[in-house]
Amino acid sequence: MTPVDRRSLSREITRLANASVAEALALDALPADRCPLIGITGPPGVGKSSLIARLARERMAARDSLAILAIDPTSPLSGGAILGDRIRMGELVDDRRIFIRSLATRDSRDGLADNLPLIIDRIVRAGFAEVLLETVGVGQVEYAVRDMVDTMVLVLSPGSGDQIQAMKSGIIETPDIFVINKADLPGADRVAGEIRSILHFRKAPPTVWRPRLVKVSADRGEGLADLSTLIDGHQAWLVEQGGGPTAAQWRRQILASLIARRAGDVLRALPTDATEGRLSDAFHRAIGAMAAKEEPGDG
Amino acid sequence: MTPVDRRSLSREITRLANASVAEALALDALPADRCPLIGITGPPGVGKSSLIARLARERMAARDSLAILAIDPTSPLSGGAILGDRIRMGELVDDRRIFIRSLATRDSRDGLADNLPLIIDRIVRAGFAEVLLETVGVGQVEYAVRDMVDTMVLVLSPGSGDQIQAMKSGIIETPDIFVINKADLPGADRVAGEIRSILHFRKAPPTVWRPRLVKVSADRGEGLADLSTLIDGHQAWLVEQGGGPTAAQWRRQILASLIARRAGDVLRALPTDATEGRLSDAFHRAIGAMAAKEEPGDG
Repeated sequence: MTPVDRRSLSREITRLANASVAEALALDALPADRCPLIGITGPPGVGKSSLIARLARERMAARDSLAILAIDPTSPLSGGAILGDRIRMGELVDDRRIFIRSLATRDSRDGLADNLPLIIDRIVRAGFAEVLLETVGVGQVEYAVRDMVDTMVLVLSPGSGDQIQAMKSGIIETPDIFVINKADLPGADRVAGEIRSILHFRKAPPTVWRPRLVKVSADRGEGLADLSTLIDGHQAWLVEQGGGPTAAQWRRQILASLIARRAGDVLRALPTDATEGRLSDAFHRAIGAMAAKEEPGDG
Repeated sequence: MTPVDRRSLSREITRLANASVAEALALDALPADRCPLIGITGPPGVGKSSLIARLARERMAARDSLAILAIDPTSPLSGGAILGDRIRMGELVDDRRIFIRSLATRDSRDGLADNLPLIIDRIVRAGFAEVLLETVGVGQVEYAVRDMVDTMVLVLSPGSGDQIQAMKSGIIETPDIFVINKADLPGADRVAGEIRSILHFRKAPPTVWRPRLVKVSADRGEGLADLSTLIDGHQAWLVEQGGGPTAAQWRRQILASLIARRAGDVLRALPTDATEGRLSDAFHRAIGAMAAKEEPGDG
């Protein structure tokens, strides 16, 4: 990879994460050719961070650089999870070829950081061989991330059985690869069986990826090579199919997130009486306010 | 309560749930004085539906009517959870004083049904003594629901320990009442202890509600009276403090959901080349398209 000044990249990410809509619009992101982007998600407590630390080691066997971006939905006040990430990923921190960044979510409503698409765009353009994106959540966040990554990995654990039963048709349709982490604990086979029984009933044309399942024990270092091979397999299949999200799809994501933020800003700033009267009048007043704001660098 | 034609109310809800933004704007909702609205949420598998069925019985001891609205994030194709709800809530279906409605989410991105604020508004205006709103999710949906309900109840189970540890500062700050359901199973005391240890460290001024915790076994019918008393206690405290969300806050929610939907509609309809060129130009084209659409009944 081209040498990256880690401190200046990290500063730039902080600036992007805190940029207003007007500032973000002036940045004029233009996603170029890019490296693979692997999304890794799953409910809290399944051991995602340990797994990613181990997986990163595995990926580095065939790569010269890697970036890990962890989106943390917990409040910055606690700092708990961010500190936890650092400890769990501690062994990676000293590797200069690996760039690790945690981002707290300022507004937890969608569980994503402000300007996430712009931040991912920036990291991708820094020239890493691969980017791992860690998100926490069950069902909602995944849909937003799904549209931005090439390969989607869902991590579950032997304790996830109840969740799987209850969300069969939701999250289960999204991932390319299922991981049962902590596979050395009792119940792993039962959870794997539940997922397989759901996947078995999926009817999909041959051009649709058939999701795979792998059992891993990140703590014992078992199954990581298999997971890595599955990721490579999905990447190869994607290339065959014409690739993951295109630059146009990325730009759409960036636009969508900026429009949602502008709407939030406008609604928060509306005086109370602006919502009175007819619903359609209030609606048009709000849209007018969204359009009215001028951007720096706009002309 | 004023007699409600259940079939026509149910038809109206279906119509609202499927109404386009333009149709919804023409409806001109005006939330009037309203009954208490209790949000009941929690991860899948903790037994929310059984608990709500039991809680409804408990609430009916002091009320003459009740509505239960269940938002189901699973795809309508599976039908599993909706059918499940009906079975678990079966004993309530024959009670003419209780109105039960499940709503699938058309677009699972936010885990909420289209037009949910308008639907709640309609149910509230039907004159029920109380409305229970069941949502599934961990962390994201709750924030949206939080702004619409008076009392927020989070249901967990003895299996939720890992989740609590991992999301300490997120969801834990939202609920007014914590329920440990399936409290007869091993691990209930450990989970209760974990929540109490988190709550213990909360520093809050006296005008802020101090969240309560109650152990329940819905299957055995234990703890429901205690939960009901806690809900009444929070309602009484709210009245003392000046009440829950006001009509103005509700209108803001309705506006926010309609603006988000209009943005989604516009982005999906944008031709690919509309997102090309400068980011700020594409942004203003999209906002312009949001404003341009005319509503039926608008003039």
